[in-house]
Amino acid sequence: MSTPIRIGIVTISDRASSGVYQDLGGPAIQQYFTEVLTCDWESVYRLIPDDQPGIEDTLRELVDGQGCALVVTTGGTGPSPRDVTPEATRAVLDKELEGFGEQMRAVSLSKVPTAILSRQTAGVRGRSLILNLPGKPKAIAECLDAVMAAVPYCIDLIHGPYLTTDPARIVAFRPKAG
Amino acid sequence: MSTPIRIGIVTISDRASSGVYQDLGGPAIQQYFTEVLTCDWESVYRLIPDDQPGIEDTLRELVDGQGCALVVTTGGTGPSPRDVTPEATRAVLDKELEGFGEQMRAVSLSKVPTAILSRQTAGVRGRSLILNLPGKPKAIAECLDAVMAAVPYCIDLIHGPYLTTDPARIVAFRPKAG
Amino acid sequence: MSTPIRIGIVTISDRASSGVYQDLGGPAIQQYFTEVLTCDWESVYRLIPDDQPGIEDTLRELVDGQGCALVVTTGGTGPSPRDVTPEATRAVLDKELEGFGEQMRAVSLSKVPTAILSRQTAGVRGRSLILNLPGKPKAIAECLDAVMAAVPYCIDLIHGPYLTTDPARIVAFRPKAG
Repeated sequence: MSTPIRIGIVTISDRASSGVYQDLGGPAIQQYFTEVLTCDWESVYRLIPDDQPGIEDTLRELVDGQGCALVVTTGGTGPSPRDVTPEATRAVLDKELEGFGEQMRAVSLSKVPTAILSRQTAGVRGRSLILNLPGKPKAIAECLDAVMAAVPYCIDLIHGPYLTTDPARIVAFRPKAG
Repeated sequence: MSTPIRIGIVTISDRASSGVYQDLGGPAIQQYFTEVLTCDWESVYRLIPDDQPGIEDTLRELVDGQGCALVVTTGGTGPSPRDVTPEATRAVLDKELEGFGEQMRAVSLSKVPTAILSRQTAGVRGRSLILNLPGKPKAIAECLDAVMAAVPYCIDLIHGPYLTTDPARIVAFRPKAG
Repeated sequence: MSTPIRIGIVTISDRASSGVYQDLGGPAIQQYFTEVLTCDWESVYRLIPDDQPGIEDTLRELVDGQGCALVVTTGGTGPSPRDVTPEATRAVLDKELEGFGEQMRAVSLSKVPTAILSRQTAGVRGRSLILNLPGKPKAIAECLDAVMAAVPYCIDLIHGPYLTTDPARIVAFRPKAG
Protein backbone atom coordinates (compact mmCIF):
# COMPACT_ATOMS: atom_id res chain seq x y z
CA MET A 1 0.00 0.00 0.00
CA SER A 2 1.59 3.25 -1.12
CA THR A 3 1.29 6.51 0.77
CA PRO A 4 -0.49 9.41 -0.93
CA ILE A 5 1.57 12.03 -2.74
CA ARG A 6 1.64 15.20 -0.64
CA ILE A 7 0.89 18.62 -2.09
CA GLY A 8 1.39 21.74 -0.01
CA ILE A 9 -1.18 24.52 -0.45
CA VAL A 10 -0.12 27.84 1.06
CA THR A 11 -2.34 30.91 1.15
CA ILE A 12 -0.26 33.99 1.87
CA SER A 13 -2.40 36.94 2.96
CA ASP A 14 -2.34 39.29 5.94
CA ARG A 15 -6.08 39.75 5.80
CA ALA A 16 -7.15 36.15 5.26
CA SER A 17 -4.74 34.87 7.93
CA SER A 18 -6.07 37.37 10.49
CA GLY A 19 -9.68 36.45 9.72
CA VAL A 20 -10.65 39.72 7.99
CA TYR A 21 -11.90 37.67 5.09
CA GLN A 22 -12.22 34.07 4.13
CA ASP A 23 -9.47 32.31 2.20
CA LEU A 24 -10.80 31.53 -1.26
CA GLY A 25 -7.46 30.82 -2.95
CA GLY A 26 -6.46 27.76 -0.91
CA PRO A 27 -9.79 25.99 -1.56
CA ALA A 28 -9.55 26.90 -5.27
CA ILE A 29 -6.17 25.13 -5.50
CA GLN A 30 -7.56 22.11 -3.59
CA GLN A 31 -10.50 21.98 -6.02
CA TYR A 32 -8.19 22.22 -9.04
CA PHE A 33 -6.08 19.23 -8.04
CA THR A 34 -9.17 17.25 -7.05
CA GLU A 35 -10.39 17.68 -10.62
CA VAL A 36 -7.06 17.20 -12.41
CA LEU A 37 -5.03 14.57 -10.54
CA THR A 38 -5.81 10.86 -10.85
CA CYS A 39 -3.01 9.63 -8.54
CA ASP A 40 -3.55 9.18 -4.81
CA TRP A 41 -2.75 12.49 -3.11
CA GLU A 42 -3.42 14.55 -0.01
CA SER A 43 -3.02 18.24 0.73
CA VAL A 44 -1.10 19.93 3.52
CA TYR A 45 -2.68 23.35 3.98
CA ARG A 46 -1.22 26.51 5.53
CA LEU A 47 -2.72 30.01 5.87
CA ILE A 48 -0.04 32.58 6.77
CA PRO A 49 0.61 36.35 6.69
CA ASP A 50 2.79 38.27 4.22
CA ASP A 51 5.93 37.93 6.32
CA GLN A 52 9.09 36.88 4.49
CA PRO A 53 10.82 34.83 7.22
CA GLY A 54 7.51 33.12 8.04
CA ILE A 55 6.89 32.22 4.38
CA GLU A 56 10.41 30.83 4.04
CA ASP A 57 9.95 28.71 7.19
CA THR A 58 6.63 27.37 5.92
CA LEU A 59 8.05 26.46 2.50
CA ARG A 60 11.04 24.69 4.09
CA GLU A 61 8.80 22.78 6.50
CA LEU A 62 6.44 21.63 3.73
CA VAL A 63 9.33 20.41 1.55
CA ASP A 64 11.87 19.14 4.09
CA GLY A 65 9.54 18.17 6.96
CA GLN A 66 6.26 17.17 5.33
CA GLY A 67 7.83 15.73 2.18
CA CYS A 68 5.54 17.56 -0.24
CA ALA A 69 6.37 16.79 -3.89
CA LEU A 70 4.70 20.01 -4.98
CA VAL A 71 4.02 23.21 -3.03
CA VAL A 72 1.66 25.80 -4.53
CA THR A 73 1.33 29.27 -3.01
CA THR A 74 -1.33 31.90 -3.66
CA GLY A 75 -0.92 35.59 -2.87
CA GLY A 76 1.85 38.08 -2.23
CA THR A 77 3.20 38.28 -5.78
CA GLY A 78 2.35 41.90 -6.64
CA PRO A 79 4.32 45.15 -6.38
CA SER A 80 2.89 46.27 -3.00
CA PRO A 81 5.26 46.75 -0.06
CA ARG A 82 3.80 43.72 1.78
CA ASP A 83 4.09 41.42 -1.29
CA VAL A 84 7.16 39.28 -0.57
CA THR A 85 6.23 35.79 -1.79
CA PRO A 86 8.71 35.72 -4.72
CA GLU A 87 11.56 36.90 -2.48
CA ALA A 88 10.74 34.21 0.11
CA THR A 89 10.43 31.57 -2.60
CA ARG A 90 13.76 32.46 -4.23
CA ALA A 91 15.43 32.33 -0.81
CA VAL A 92 14.54 28.63 -0.39
CA LEU A 93 14.96 27.43 -3.99
CA ASP A 94 17.93 25.40 -5.22
CA LYS A 95 17.11 26.37 -8.82
CA GLU A 96 14.69 28.92 -10.23
CA LEU A 97 12.62 27.93 -13.29
CA GLU A 98 11.98 31.27 -15.01
CA GLY A 99 9.77 29.71 -17.68
CA PHE A 100 6.89 29.17 -15.26
CA GLY A 101 6.51 32.85 -14.38
CA GLU A 102 6.96 33.90 -18.00
CA GLN A 103 4.30 31.51 -19.23
CA MET A 104 1.76 32.29 -16.49
CA ARG A 105 2.17 36.02 -17.13
CA ALA A 106 1.85 35.51 -20.90
CA VAL A 107 -1.40 33.56 -20.49
CA SER A 108 -2.85 35.98 -17.92
CA LEU A 109 -1.95 38.91 -20.17
CA SER A 110 -4.44 37.68 -22.74
CA LYS A 111 -7.08 38.30 -20.03
CA VAL A 112 -5.87 41.38 -18.11
CA PRO A 113 -3.09 43.88 -18.93
CA THR A 114 -2.15 44.07 -15.24
CA ALA A 115 -0.76 40.52 -15.43
CA ILE A 116 2.64 42.12 -16.01
CA LEU A 117 2.56 43.29 -12.37
CA SER A 118 2.67 39.73 -11.06
CA ARG A 119 6.13 38.63 -9.97
CA GLN A 120 5.25 34.96 -9.48
CA THR A 121 8.02 32.43 -10.00
CA ALA A 122 8.74 28.72 -9.49
CA GLY A 123 11.65 26.40 -8.91
CA VAL A 124 12.97 23.32 -7.22
CA ARG A 125 14.06 22.66 -3.68
CA GLY A 126 15.40 19.15 -3.22
CA ARG A 127 12.83 16.77 -4.71
CA SER A 128 10.03 19.32 -4.61
CA LEU A 129 8.64 21.86 -7.09
CA ILE A 130 7.49 25.15 -5.53
CA LEU A 131 5.10 27.22 -7.62
CA ASN A 132 3.68 30.70 -6.93
CA LEU A 133 0.22 31.71 -8.12
CA PRO A 134 -1.37 35.16 -7.93
CA GLY A 135 -3.78 35.89 -5.08
CA LYS A 136 -6.94 36.35 -7.13
CA PRO A 137 -8.98 33.11 -6.94
CA LYS A 138 -10.12 33.37 -10.53
CA ALA A 139 -6.50 33.46 -11.75
CA ILE A 140 -5.69 30.15 -10.07
CA ALA A 141 -7.13 27.65 -12.57
CA GLU A 142 -6.01 29.86 -15.45
CA CYS A 143 -2.39 29.90 -14.26
CA LEU A 144 -2.30 26.22 -13.32
CA ASP A 145 -3.78 25.29 -16.70
CA ALA A 146 -0.92 27.26 -18.32
CA VAL A 147 1.82 25.12 -16.73
CA MET A 148 0.28 21.91 -15.38
CA ALA A 149 1.18 19.78 -18.44
CA ALA A 150 4.87 20.21 -17.52
CA VAL A 151 4.56 19.65 -13.76
CA PRO A 152 4.57 15.80 -13.61
CA TYR A 153 7.68 15.52 -15.82
CA CYS A 154 9.44 18.24 -13.80
CA ILE A 155 8.80 16.20 -10.64
CA ASP A 156 10.10 13.06 -12.43
CA LEU A 157 13.34 14.90 -13.25
CA ILE A 158 13.98 15.83 -9.63
CA HIS A 159 13.28 12.24 -8.52
CA GLY A 160 9.91 12.94 -6.94
CA PRO A 161 6.80 10.71 -7.11
CA TYR A 162 4.90 9.89 -10.31
CA LEU A 163 1.94 12.23 -10.77
CA THR A 164 -0.88 11.31 -13.13
CA THR A 165 -3.61 13.54 -14.53
CA ASP A 166 -7.03 13.16 -16.09
CA PRO A 167 -6.25 13.60 -19.80
CA ALA A 168 -9.71 15.08 -20.36
CA ARG A 169 -8.46 17.99 -18.23
CA ILE A 170 -4.65 18.09 -18.63
CA VAL A 171 -2.40 15.79 -20.67
CA ALA A 172 0.79 15.33 -18.65
CA PHE A 173 3.62 15.61 -21.16
CA ARG A 174 6.60 13.29 -20.70
CA PRO A 175 9.00 13.64 -23.65
CA LYS A 176 10.84 10.62 -25.00
CA ALA A 177 14.65 10.76 -24.86
CA GLY A 178 16.50 12.12 -27.92
CA MET B 1 -5.63 72.92 -5.36
CA SER B 2 -3.64 69.76 -5.95
CA THR B 3 -0.03 69.71 -7.13
CA PRO B 4 0.73 68.11 -10.49
CA ILE B 5 1.87 64.48 -10.57
CA ARG B 6 5.59 64.39 -11.32
CA ILE B 7 7.08 62.13 -13.97
CA GLY B 8 10.82 61.81 -14.35
CA ILE B 9 12.17 61.51 -17.91
CA VAL B 10 15.79 60.42 -18.09
CA THR B 11 17.76 60.17 -21.32
CA ILE B 12 20.87 58.07 -20.81
CA SER B 13 23.41 58.55 -23.60
CA ASP B 14 27.08 59.45 -23.70
CA ARG B 15 26.70 61.12 -27.06
CA ALA B 16 23.48 63.07 -26.45
CA SER B 17 24.68 64.26 -23.03
CA SER B 18 27.97 65.52 -24.49
CA GLY B 19 26.17 67.36 -27.30
CA VAL B 20 27.32 65.07 -30.16
CA TYR B 21 23.72 64.71 -31.15
CA GLN B 22 20.35 65.95 -30.04
CA ASP B 23 18.26 63.99 -27.55
CA LEU B 24 15.23 62.67 -29.39
CA GLY B 25 14.16 60.05 -26.80
CA GLY B 26 13.38 62.42 -23.94
CA PRO B 27 11.06 64.61 -26.07
CA ALA B 28 9.38 61.46 -27.46
CA ILE B 29 8.50 60.35 -23.91
CA GLN B 30 7.25 63.87 -23.06
CA GLN B 31 5.10 63.81 -26.19
CA TYR B 32 3.72 60.37 -25.34
CA PHE B 33 2.50 61.38 -21.90
CA THR B 34 1.12 64.67 -23.24
CA GLU B 35 -1.07 62.63 -25.58
CA VAL B 36 -2.01 59.84 -23.16
CA LEU B 37 -2.41 61.34 -19.66
CA THR B 38 -5.50 63.34 -18.69
CA CYS B 39 -4.43 64.04 -15.08
CA ASP B 40 -2.46 67.16 -14.13
CA TRP B 41 1.23 66.31 -14.49
CA GLU B 42 4.66 67.82 -15.03
CA SER B 43 7.94 66.35 -16.16
CA VAL B 44 11.33 66.47 -14.48
CA TYR B 45 13.91 65.98 -17.23
CA ARG B 46 17.50 64.75 -17.00
CA LEU B 47 20.08 64.08 -19.75
CA ILE B 48 23.02 62.06 -18.43
CA PRO B 49 25.88 59.84 -19.67
CA ASP B 50 26.08 56.03 -19.51
CA ASP B 51 27.72 55.99 -16.09
CA GLN B 52 26.30 53.54 -13.56
CA PRO B 53 26.84 55.50 -10.32
CA GLY B 54 25.53 58.66 -11.99
CA ILE B 55 22.40 56.88 -13.26
CA GLU B 56 21.75 55.44 -9.80
CA ASP B 57 22.12 58.89 -8.21
CA THR B 58 19.73 60.43 -10.76
CA LEU B 59 17.09 57.73 -10.22
CA ARG B 60 17.31 58.11 -6.43
CA GLU B 61 17.07 61.89 -6.64
CA LEU B 62 14.03 61.78 -8.94
CA VAL B 63 12.20 59.32 -6.66
CA ASP B 64 13.33 60.35 -3.18
CA GLY B 65 14.05 64.04 -3.77
CA GLN B 66 11.70 65.15 -6.53
CA GLY B 67 8.85 62.82 -5.55
CA CYS B 68 8.26 61.47 -9.06
CA ALA B 69 5.48 58.85 -9.15
CA LEU B 70 6.90 57.41 -12.37
CA VAL B 71 10.41 57.59 -13.80
CA VAL B 72 10.97 56.56 -17.41
CA THR B 73 14.47 56.11 -18.82
CA THR B 74 15.56 55.79 -22.45
CA GLY B 75 18.88 54.34 -23.57
CA GLY B 76 21.63 52.12 -22.23
CA THR B 77 19.71 48.83 -22.31
CA GLY B 78 21.70 46.93 -24.95
CA PRO B 79 24.63 44.50 -24.74
CA SER B 80 27.40 47.07 -25.38
CA PRO B 81 30.06 47.64 -22.72
CA ARG B 82 28.73 51.16 -21.96
CA ASP B 83 25.09 49.97 -21.62
CA VAL B 84 24.49 49.87 -17.86
CA THR B 85 20.95 51.21 -17.39
CA PRO B 86 19.43 47.89 -16.23
CA GLU B 87 22.24 47.37 -13.72
CA ALA B 88 21.78 50.90 -12.33
CA THR B 89 18.01 50.45 -12.22
CA ARG B 90 18.18 47.12 -10.37
CA ALA B 91 20.58 48.66 -7.86
CA VAL B 92 17.96 51.22 -6.75
CA LEU B 93 14.79 49.07 -6.98
CA ASP B 94 13.01 47.61 -3.97
CA LYS B 95 11.26 45.08 -6.20
CA GLU B 96 11.84 44.16 -9.83
CA LEU B 97 8.78 43.60 -12.05
CA GLU B 98 10.03 41.12 -14.65
CA GLY B 99 6.78 41.20 -16.61
CA PHE B 100 7.45 44.68 -17.99
CA GLY B 101 10.69 43.71 -19.74
CA GLU B 102 9.20 40.44 -20.98
CA GLN B 103 6.18 42.16 -22.47
CA MET B 104 8.09 45.03 -24.07
CA ARG B 105 10.53 42.56 -25.66
CA ALA B 106 7.67 40.38 -26.87
CA VAL B 107 5.91 43.32 -28.53
CA SER B 108 9.12 44.70 -30.06
CA LEU B 109 10.00 41.24 -31.36
CA SER B 110 7.01 41.37 -33.66
CA LYS B 111 8.76 44.36 -35.30
CA VAL B 112 12.49 43.56 -35.11
CA PRO B 113 14.31 40.31 -34.22
CA THR B 114 17.00 42.28 -32.39
CA ALA B 115 14.46 43.13 -29.65
CA ILE B 116 15.87 40.16 -27.74
CA LEU B 117 19.06 42.16 -27.22
CA SER B 118 17.27 44.74 -25.07
CA ARG B 119 17.76 44.20 -21.34
CA GLN B 120 15.21 46.79 -20.23
CA THR B 121 13.46 46.17 -16.92
CA ALA B 122 11.15 47.92 -14.45
CA GLY B 123 10.27 47.89 -10.80
CA VAL B 124 9.32 49.87 -7.74
CA ARG B 125 11.30 52.07 -5.41
CA GLY B 126 9.22 53.38 -2.53
CA ARG B 127 6.04 54.85 -4.04
CA SER B 128 7.52 55.18 -7.52
CA LEU B 129 7.58 52.98 -10.59
CA ILE B 130 10.83 53.08 -12.60
CA LEU B 131 10.63 51.89 -16.20
CA ASN B 132 13.41 51.44 -18.76
CA LEU B 133 12.80 51.96 -22.47
CA PRO B 134 15.23 51.30 -25.33
CA GLY B 135 17.19 54.19 -26.77
CA LYS B 136 15.67 54.21 -30.25
CA PRO B 137 13.05 56.99 -30.39
CA LYS B 138 10.71 54.95 -32.59
CA ALA B 139 10.62 52.14 -29.99
CA ILE B 140 9.36 54.49 -27.27
CA ALA B 141 5.65 54.72 -28.09
CA GLU B 142 5.63 51.05 -29.08
CA CYS B 143 7.05 49.94 -25.72
CA LEU B 144 4.93 52.34 -23.66
CA ASP B 145 1.80 51.21 -25.51
CA ALA B 146 2.71 47.62 -24.55
CA VAL B 147 2.62 48.29 -20.80
CA MET B 148 0.84 51.60 -20.17
CA ALA B 149 -2.57 50.03 -19.39
CA ALA B 150 -1.03 48.49 -16.25
CA VAL B 151 0.93 51.56 -15.06
CA PRO B 152 -1.83 53.50 -13.23
CA TYR B 153 -2.93 50.44 -11.20
CA CYS B 154 0.69 49.62 -10.37
CA ILE B 155 1.11 53.13 -8.97
CA ASP B 156 -2.16 52.72 -7.01
CA LEU B 157 -0.78 49.52 -5.43
CA ILE B 158 2.37 51.26 -4.20
CA HIS B 159 0.29 54.14 -2.76
CA GLY B 160 1.26 56.69 -5.40
CA PRO B 161 -1.05 59.30 -6.99
CA TYR B 162 -4.04 58.48 -9.19
CA LEU B 163 -3.11 58.60 -12.88
CA THR B 164 -5.79 58.91 -15.53
CA THR B 165 -5.51 58.32 -19.26
CA ASP B 166 -7.38 59.22 -22.41
CA PRO B 167 -9.33 56.01 -23.13
CA ALA B 168 -9.17 56.74 -26.85
CA ARG B 169 -5.43 56.16 -26.49
CA ILE B 170 -4.95 53.81 -23.51
CA VAL B 171 -7.59 52.30 -21.22
CA ALA B 172 -6.09 52.23 -17.72
CA PHE B 173 -7.03 48.85 -16.29
CA ARG B 174 -7.94 48.70 -12.60
CA PRO B 175 -9.17 45.19 -11.69
CA LYS B 176 -11.99 44.72 -9.19
CA ALA B 177 -11.16 42.72 -6.05
CA GLY B 178 -11.79 38.93 -6.13
CA MET C 1 44.31 36.95 -45.47
CA SER C 2 41.90 37.08 -42.55
CA THR C 3 41.68 34.38 -39.89
CA PRO C 4 38.43 32.43 -39.61
CA ILE C 5 35.88 33.53 -37.00
CA ARG C 6 35.95 31.07 -34.11
CA ILE C 7 32.81 29.53 -32.67
CA GLY C 8 32.95 27.43 -29.51
CA ILE C 9 30.67 24.39 -29.38
CA VAL C 10 30.35 22.87 -25.92
CA THR C 11 28.41 19.69 -25.19
CA ILE C 12 27.72 19.42 -21.47
CA SER C 13 26.70 15.90 -20.45
CA ASP C 14 27.95 13.45 -17.84
CA ARG C 15 26.95 10.49 -19.97
CA ALA C 16 28.23 11.67 -23.35
CA SER C 17 31.53 12.85 -21.84
CA SER C 18 32.08 9.48 -20.15
CA GLY C 19 31.32 7.59 -23.37
CA VAL C 20 27.98 6.09 -22.25
CA TYR C 21 26.47 7.48 -25.38
CA GLN C 22 27.52 9.45 -28.41
CA ASP C 23 27.32 13.24 -28.47
CA LEU C 24 24.63 14.23 -30.96
CA GLY C 25 24.17 17.84 -29.82
CA GLY C 26 27.65 19.10 -30.68
CA PRO C 27 27.51 17.79 -34.27
CA ALA C 28 23.97 19.25 -34.64
CA ILE C 29 25.31 22.71 -33.76
CA GLN C 30 28.26 22.25 -36.15
CA GLN C 31 25.81 21.24 -38.90
CA TYR C 32 23.57 24.25 -38.19
CA PHE C 33 26.35 26.81 -38.58
CA THR C 34 27.69 24.99 -41.65
CA GLU C 35 24.30 25.52 -43.27
CA VAL C 36 23.63 29.06 -42.00
CA LEU C 37 26.93 30.98 -41.95
CA THR C 38 28.52 32.33 -45.12
CA CYS C 39 31.57 33.93 -43.46
CA ASP C 40 34.82 32.04 -42.95
CA TRP C 41 34.59 30.24 -39.59
CA GLU C 42 35.96 27.31 -37.62
CA SER C 43 34.68 25.50 -34.57
CA VAL C 44 36.42 24.81 -31.29
CA TYR C 45 34.72 21.78 -29.78
CA ARG C 46 34.57 20.62 -26.16
CA LEU C 47 32.74 17.67 -24.56
CA ILE C 48 32.59 18.01 -20.77
CA PRO C 49 30.64 16.68 -17.77
CA ASP C 50 27.93 18.54 -15.78
CA ASP C 51 30.38 20.07 -13.33
CA GLN C 52 29.97 23.78 -12.59
CA PRO C 53 33.61 24.79 -12.04
CA GLY C 54 34.64 22.79 -15.11
CA ILE C 55 31.98 24.44 -17.28
CA GLU C 56 33.04 27.89 -16.08
CA ASP C 57 36.69 27.11 -16.87
CA THR C 58 35.78 25.88 -20.35
CA LEU C 59 33.68 28.96 -21.15
CA ARG C 60 36.44 31.29 -19.94
CA GLU C 61 39.07 29.43 -21.96
CA LEU C 62 36.98 29.52 -25.15
CA VAL C 63 36.32 33.26 -24.82
CA ASP C 64 39.53 34.57 -23.26
CA GLY C 65 42.02 32.01 -24.55
CA GLN C 66 40.64 30.80 -27.89
CA GLY C 67 39.06 34.12 -28.86
CA CYS C 68 35.70 32.65 -29.83
CA ALA C 69 33.22 35.33 -30.97
CA LEU C 70 30.31 33.03 -30.13
CA VAL C 71 30.12 30.07 -27.75
CA VAL C 72 27.10 27.77 -27.92
CA THR C 73 26.47 25.15 -25.26
CA THR C 74 24.07 22.20 -25.34
CA GLY C 75 22.84 20.35 -22.26
CA GLY C 76 22.51 20.91 -18.53
CA THR C 77 19.69 23.46 -18.64
CA GLY C 78 16.91 21.48 -16.94
CA PRO C 79 15.74 21.26 -13.31
CA SER C 80 17.70 18.10 -12.40
CA PRO C 81 20.28 18.25 -9.63
CA ARG C 82 23.17 17.79 -12.11
CA ASP C 83 21.90 20.53 -14.47
CA VAL C 84 24.15 23.52 -13.75
CA THR C 85 24.85 25.07 -17.17
CA PRO C 86 22.87 28.30 -16.53
CA GLU C 87 24.60 28.81 -13.16
CA ALA C 88 28.03 28.31 -14.75
CA THR C 89 27.13 30.61 -17.64
CA ARG C 90 25.88 33.41 -15.38
CA ALA C 91 29.07 33.14 -13.32
CA VAL C 92 31.22 34.07 -16.33
CA LEU C 93 28.94 36.63 -18.03
CA ASP C 94 29.50 40.36 -17.90
CA LYS C 95 25.86 40.98 -18.89
CA GLU C 96 22.94 38.58 -19.12
CA LEU C 97 20.57 38.93 -22.09
CA GLU C 98 17.25 37.65 -20.73
CA GLY C 99 15.50 37.98 -24.07
CA PHE C 100 17.31 34.98 -25.56
CA GLY C 101 16.01 32.51 -22.96
CA GLU C 102 12.52 34.02 -23.08
CA GLN C 103 12.31 33.76 -26.84
CA MET C 104 13.75 30.24 -27.09
CA ARG C 105 11.30 29.02 -24.42
CA ALA C 106 8.39 30.77 -26.16
CA VAL C 107 9.22 29.12 -29.48
CA SER C 108 9.81 25.67 -27.95
CA LEU C 109 6.53 25.97 -26.02
CA SER C 110 4.63 25.90 -29.29
CA LYS C 111 6.09 22.38 -29.72
CA VAL C 112 6.27 20.91 -26.19
CA PRO C 113 4.74 22.15 -22.91
CA THR C 114 7.85 21.06 -21.02
CA ALA C 115 9.81 23.89 -22.66
CA ILE C 116 9.07 25.91 -19.51
CA LEU C 117 11.46 23.60 -17.62
CA SER C 118 14.45 24.82 -19.62
CA ARG C 119 16.53 27.40 -17.81
CA GLN C 120 18.74 28.29 -20.78
CA THR C 121 20.13 31.82 -20.90
CA ALA C 122 22.64 33.92 -22.87
CA GLY C 123 24.83 36.93 -22.43
CA VAL C 124 28.10 38.61 -23.18
CA ARG C 125 31.59 38.12 -21.83
CA GLY C 126 34.07 40.59 -23.28
CA ARG C 127 33.64 40.52 -27.06
CA SER C 128 31.90 37.15 -27.07
CA LEU C 129 28.27 36.05 -26.96
CA ILE C 130 27.61 32.88 -24.94
CA LEU C 131 24.37 31.06 -25.69
CA ASN C 132 22.85 28.02 -23.95
CA LEU C 133 20.73 25.50 -25.87
CA PRO C 134 18.81 22.56 -24.43
CA GLY C 135 20.35 19.10 -24.59
CA LYS C 136 17.87 17.47 -26.94
CA PRO C 137 19.39 17.42 -30.45
CA LYS C 138 16.05 18.12 -32.14
CA ALA C 139 15.63 21.35 -30.11
CA ILE C 140 18.93 22.75 -31.37
CA ALA C 141 17.94 24.04 -34.83
CA GLU C 142 14.56 25.14 -33.46
CA CYS C 143 16.14 27.27 -30.72
CA LEU C 144 18.90 28.67 -32.96
CA ASP C 145 16.33 29.58 -35.60
CA ALA C 146 14.44 31.52 -32.90
CA VAL C 147 17.34 33.84 -32.11
CA MET C 148 19.91 33.63 -34.92
CA ALA C 149 18.66 36.74 -36.78
CA ALA C 150 19.82 38.85 -33.81
CA VAL C 151 23.20 37.16 -33.21
CA PRO C 152 25.36 38.95 -35.84
CA TYR C 153 24.21 42.43 -34.71
CA CYS C 154 24.75 41.49 -31.07
CA ILE C 155 28.35 40.54 -31.90
CA ASP C 156 28.75 43.84 -33.82
CA LEU C 157 27.63 45.75 -30.69
CA ILE C 158 30.25 44.09 -28.50
CA HIS C 159 32.98 44.80 -31.11
CA GLY C 160 33.33 41.21 -32.30
CA PRO C 161 33.85 40.07 -35.91
CA TYR C 162 31.30 40.53 -38.71
CA LEU C 163 29.17 37.40 -39.14
CA THR C 164 27.23 36.84 -42.35
CA THR C 165 24.43 34.37 -43.01
CA ASP C 166 22.74 32.75 -45.95
CA PRO C 167 19.55 34.81 -46.31
CA ALA C 168 17.72 31.79 -47.69
CA ARG C 169 18.14 30.34 -44.19
CA ILE C 170 18.42 33.31 -41.78
CA VAL C 171 18.32 37.02 -42.57
CA ALA C 172 20.79 38.70 -40.19
CA PHE C 173 19.04 41.83 -38.95
CA ARG C 174 21.17 44.96 -38.50
CA PRO C 175 18.95 47.94 -37.62
CA LYS C 176 19.74 51.38 -38.95
CA ALA C 177 20.40 54.10 -36.35
CA GLY C 178 17.44 56.26 -35.18
